[in-house]
Amino acid sequence: MPDAGKYLSNINSPDDLKKYKVEELPAICDELRQYIIDVVSKHPGHFGSSLGVVELTVALHYVYNTPYDQLVWDVGHQAYGHKILTGRRDQFPSNRLLHGISGFPKRSESEYDAFGAGHASTSISAALGLAMGAKLKGETDRNVVAIIGDGSMTGGLAFEGLNNAGVQKTNLLVVLNDNNMAIDPSVGAFKDYLVDVSTSQRYNKLKEDVWNVLGKLNRFGPNTQALIQKIDHGVKAILMKQGNLFEALNFRYFGPIDGHDVIYLARVLDDLKRIPGPKLLHIKTVKGKGFPQAEQDQTTWHAPGLFDKKTGEIIKGKTDDRPRYQDVFGHTLLELAERNPKIVGITPAMPTGCSMNIMMEKLPDRTFDVGIAEEHAVTFAAGLAAQGMVPFCNIYSSFMQRAYDQIIHDVALQNLNVVFCLDRAGIVGADGPTHHGAFDIAFMRSIPNMTIAAPMDEHELRNMMYTAQHKPTGPFSIRYPRGKAPGNNWHGSFELIPIGKARTIREGTDVAILTIGNTGNFVKEVADKIIAHGIDYAHYDMRFVKPMDTDLLLNVFSRFNKIITIEDGVLSGGFGSAVLEFMADHSFTANVVRLGIPDKFVEHGASHELYEICGYSPDNILEAVVKLMQPTPDLHVGHRIKLFNAFHFLKQ
Amino acid sequence: MPDAGKYLSNINSPDDLKKYKVEELPAICDELRQYIIDVVSKHPGHFGSSLGVVELTVALHYVYNTPYDQLVWDVGHQAYGHKILTGRRDQFPSNRLLHGISGFPKRSESEYDAFGAGHASTSISAALGLAMGAKLKGETDRNVVAIIGDGSMTGGLAFEGLNNAGVQKTNLLVVLNDNNMAIDPSVGAFKDYLVDVSTSQRYNKLKEDVWNVLGKLNRFGPNTQALIQKIDHGVKAILMKQGNLFEALNFRYFGPIDGHDVIYLARVLDDLKRIPGPKLLHIKTVKGKGFPQAEQDQTTWHAPGLFDKKTGEIIKGKTDDRPRYQDVFGHTLLELAERNPKIVGITPAMPTGCSMNIMMEKLPDRTFDVGIAEEHAVTFAAGLAAQGMVPFCNIYSSFMQRAYDQIIHDVALQNLNVVFCLDRAGIVGADGPTHHGAFDIAFMRSIPNMTIAAPMDEHELRNMMYTAQHKPTGPFSIRYPRGKAPGNNWHGSFELIPIGKARTIREGTDVAILTIGNTGNFVKEVADKIIAHGIDYAHYDMRFVKPMDTDLLLNVFSRFNKIITIEDGVLSGGFGSAVLEFMADHSFTANVVRLGIPDKFVEHGASHELYEICGYSPDNILEAVVKLMQPTPDLHVGHRIKLFNAFHFLKQ
Repeated sequence: MPDAGKYLSNINSPDDLKKYKVEELPAICDELRQYIIDVVSKHPGHFGSSLGVVELTVALHYVYNTPYDQLVWDVGHQAYGHKILTGRRDQFPSNRLLHGISGFPKRSESEYDAFGAGHASTSISAALGLAMGAKLKGETDRNVVAIIGDGSMTGGLAFEGLNNAGVQKTNLLVVLNDNNMAIDPSVGAFKDYLVDVSTSQRYNKLKEDVWNVLGKLNRFGPNTQALIQKIDHGVKAILMKQGNLFEALNFRYFGPIDGHDVIYLARVLDDLKRIPGPKLLHIKTVKGKGFPQAEQDQTTWHAPGLFDKKTGEIIKGKTDDRPRYQDVFGHTLLELAERNPKIVGITPAMPTGCSMNIMMEKLPDRTFDVGIAEEHAVTFAAGLAAQGMVPFCNIYSSFMQRAYDQIIHDVALQNLNVVFCLDRAGIVGADGPTHHGAFDIAFMRSIPNMTIAAPMDEHELRNMMYTAQHKPTGPFSIRYPRGKAPGNNWHGSFELIPIGKARTIREGTDVAILTIGNTGNFVKEVADKIIAHGIDYAHYDMRFVKPMDTDLLLNVFSRFNKIITIEDGVLSGGFGSAVLEFMADHSFTANVVRLGIPDKFVEHGASHELYEICGYSPDNILEAVVKLMQPTPDLHVGHRIKLFNAFHFLKQ
Repeated sequence: MPDAGKYLSNINSPDDLKKYKVEELPAICDELRQYIIDVVSKHPGHFGSSLGVVELTVALHYVYNTPYDQLVWDVGHQAYGHKILTGRRDQFPSNRLLHGISGFPKRSESEYDAFGAGHASTSISAALGLAMGAKLKGETDRNVVAIIGDGSMTGGLAFEGLNNAGVQKTNLLVVLNDNNMAIDPSVGAFKDYLVDVSTSQRYNKLKEDVWNVLGKLNRFGPNTQALIQKIDHGVKAILMKQGNLFEALNFRYFGPIDGHDVIYLARVLDDLKRIPGPKLLHIKTVKGKGFPQAEQDQTTWHAPGLFDKKTGEIIKGKTDDRPRYQDVFGHTLLELAERNPKIVGITPAMPTGCSMNIMMEKLPDRTFDVGIAEEHAVTFAAGLAAQGMVPFCNIYSSFMQRAYDQIIHDVALQNLNVVFCLDRAGIVGADGPTHHGAFDIAFMRSIPNMTIAAPMDEHELRNMMYTAQHKPTGPFSIRYPRGKAPGNNWHGSFELIPIGKARTIREGTDVAILTIGNTGNFVKEVADKIIAHGIDYAHYDMRFVKPMDTDLLLNVFSRFNKIITIEDGVLSGGFGSAVLEFMADHSFTANVVRLGIPDKFVEHGASHELYEICGYSPDNILEAVVKLMQPTPDLHVGHRIKLFNAFHFLKQ
């Protein structure tokens, strides 16, 4: 374990932090920052965000009485410092590892994690709920603080939260951590507004006025309620003159102030505790603060992987020239868009994450980063499609959950030709349950008009994208996993894939294995072992969850009574469930074993570990096939009755 | 058909409208308003919203070159005037009837309906998509206008749209139709802000300044691009001084102006056509304008049903003292909340629609109307639950689609005790495909930790609500339909319902009918007819989709090889699918027939007509049962092979 430094090694809880003098906070910040650098360089995780809020984190825990006072971190990948200060310093090297601590705040992990996160823009709503609950319970001394970045603030949920919080009488404080970045640079009118606010002479003057007033407040000590009421209108009047956006929503706006001056931050937070009602403190920070490379290339250093903390060099893994699925998507999209002028690209704040930056560089006018705004991304795509364009809308599977109504109401109901590309579909690994793309097959499958495809390799992804633009009408979704594709020779000419047609990987007679997407490769991995058991299996890469290849299924159900379905997604309502529906609707009966994510949330860990836990790793598949081929010694009573009935029926 | 008046009867398209002089527009508005009153009084539909935008509708079609110029109506129930002016005057009496015109804009119905709607807050994003598509196609002369109410503006999607539109270089115009109402009065900080803006002396002064400038522009005629560029900065400077909320998002703000002065409106819209970039025109209107009763009681007259257009009396149907499900919910919630201080109520802008107004009147501090903001409603509920409260969050099934990620990420993952009450689950009738609660069983079923209940009658609803508050932890959802409950004697003491336990309605031996929720009553309706066919059926009210009653299912699958499942929801991934999963996972085989909503969008019409079309009306059920009991003359080949295998297997 790295040395935590003379202060930090003695801080096992915020109470320990509070023992130090305010003048010592900068030194504590230095140690906390160094500890994060030390650990994350060896145990990869999110990096820049936590470095940017070191001072804020220390100031919050210094001023507030956590865990009674509650901090709600938006997204939560900036909460490493918070975890280290709240009793998890020594566990921090286990960050994001199986059975280690989570990379995000998690209620079940610590009482200091007042509300879990992973997705963006939830903190204001959640914090308002906590504050209102405290108020209803009569806990008027309990403070609740939401900490939200400027990127997250563009999500509609954050606006909904502000709109409601502005009229609820709680003492909620929202800290707007403005670093002008999401993973990529922030975009949108709101970002421009924050730049205006921060650079405006008027605002700097205003800031001084306000802080002069607050400075006076501070000197009057804690019992200043009466005075505050008196000065209140004065302060408000000053601010209202500016017609600030947050003031328009009935928040009192303070700032912007330097988010790296921990002593000043602590003083300001202490002042704000005494001001009733909804408040917003705007702080300016630098993502990656204190690590020069991370400050300079903030996107790369959002989550850099292993790195040398001295040289700032990012350590590449062993050479592997297979492309990531996302890069196959990115390059293919550009290639298609260069040929088809109707194609546009849409990403909600993930140009680097989904590799749409490749198209963005070459065709900036036809590529749209709409900010963290999945709902808008989809409805905007619907509008473009209604105008005759062919939008490729790339949204991570777990974030697509946020646009479910827009997919149904704005795209599918109007049968518009939007191509949904769901990156990070299936198990994603270390990011854990908030980020696993577990549900998309199930939730997409219920939607009429929707085509659902999933490639088994880089070629299929490429050709599915090619095919999707050709479909005359209707929404088309393509899901593919995080990480590397199985092969590396993926360029070359495009090929139309017949929609709703499966592909035979292997013919056989004993058992039929139906896979969708990447799980087909798991079967290939254990092909020899299955055969070594003397099992002559058939393997079909279904390619489409919807429409399903009914010709193939008719054939399969006619020839096999042992069938295994495998999917990198939830079993409840998923691909295997669709196979069962086909079976029932066509009056077939067979023994169908479904492998996939069981009905519980899957924790964080390496993907291969999680496949194993979920029961559809290559070894699990081998085991399931072998087991299914064994004779069934004790038949279930019901099953026996069924067979008995069948027997009598045939005799008639 | 009612007389449309001398102007309106000659207006078969916006081209006809444009033939009249601007001075004649008020008379046309009078006729249009009267025609809406005439028709809606006899053919019920939405009322107040369309009356409020009569002048806006006429002005828009007078000024803009529709359908080339595109109007996007948010929600869309205010678009009756638009439909009447665009060639659908004579069809208007078929509004909302089966095979009649839709109560909402619909692309497949008319080229004038540029983008369909039904749900709120989509118009800005969709219009931006249309505008950007036009721009990319080089159609620089095409105008796109989004018309959105102040209620819809509180939805996060609208904010996301503004944020993105503010930085895109299109000529999008957003008309903010501010009537201070959703269905119930608008709420939230944004509403307060609009009131401030509208009543402020500063703003009235500003308004004059701006309109003086615009007035000058107008006189210079159409070729004023150069002048505009010059004056632009001046106008912007005036506005920016005010730091208006929309200006903060880079929209040019104009208004507020009187939305009932059609001549002025037409002039203003004509001016705005010449101003490039994103613009917002704030108009003030009165919901129900021109019909005194509707102006006075706007909530009741949102969709009043049949009424006497002379006396303003709402005509009640034949006496039926059965309660609506929503009222059972409303009264029961209050009753429970009076006993359990932890219970709070949350509704996104539907206090009257879901009858939470009953609790709101008695316990205003514990009842929250959060505005049109489903995402926030759910995450706010999660925050309250994390603080130990028991929130009952009531959201219509089809609107719950909008909070899917929040249900998963903020509630279920943290296993928080939020009670979701899904009103309007299943087919809803005349509101049509945007409003049918078709998907909730399927999308809820995939979520770990979720309990899913559906009452068959008013007693079950009441007791499920009672039970839900007792569950130690975890999300609990209760879905129930629109309209009347089957019985009327529902008061009395509460009873705990064992979670995951079904209820036997009838025992039998030939076929097992498994129903969830209201569909159980459909079976009861045809009970005698089934028996008259000599069929001894068993009927189980499953009560819970999740967890399912596995004891009962073990018993059913052991005893029956003919099983029918019936649900008021989609078949793909729904309740019947869950039964199939049980069957497969327990190695049963049976002939399972699933009745429910097939894999297509269901149009509008009376609910009983739509059940019939979907194939699960009482008569459909009777037919399915009879058919299933008939011997199968030509067995499917595959099935035969299966039975053959079974035969051999038993012989061994």
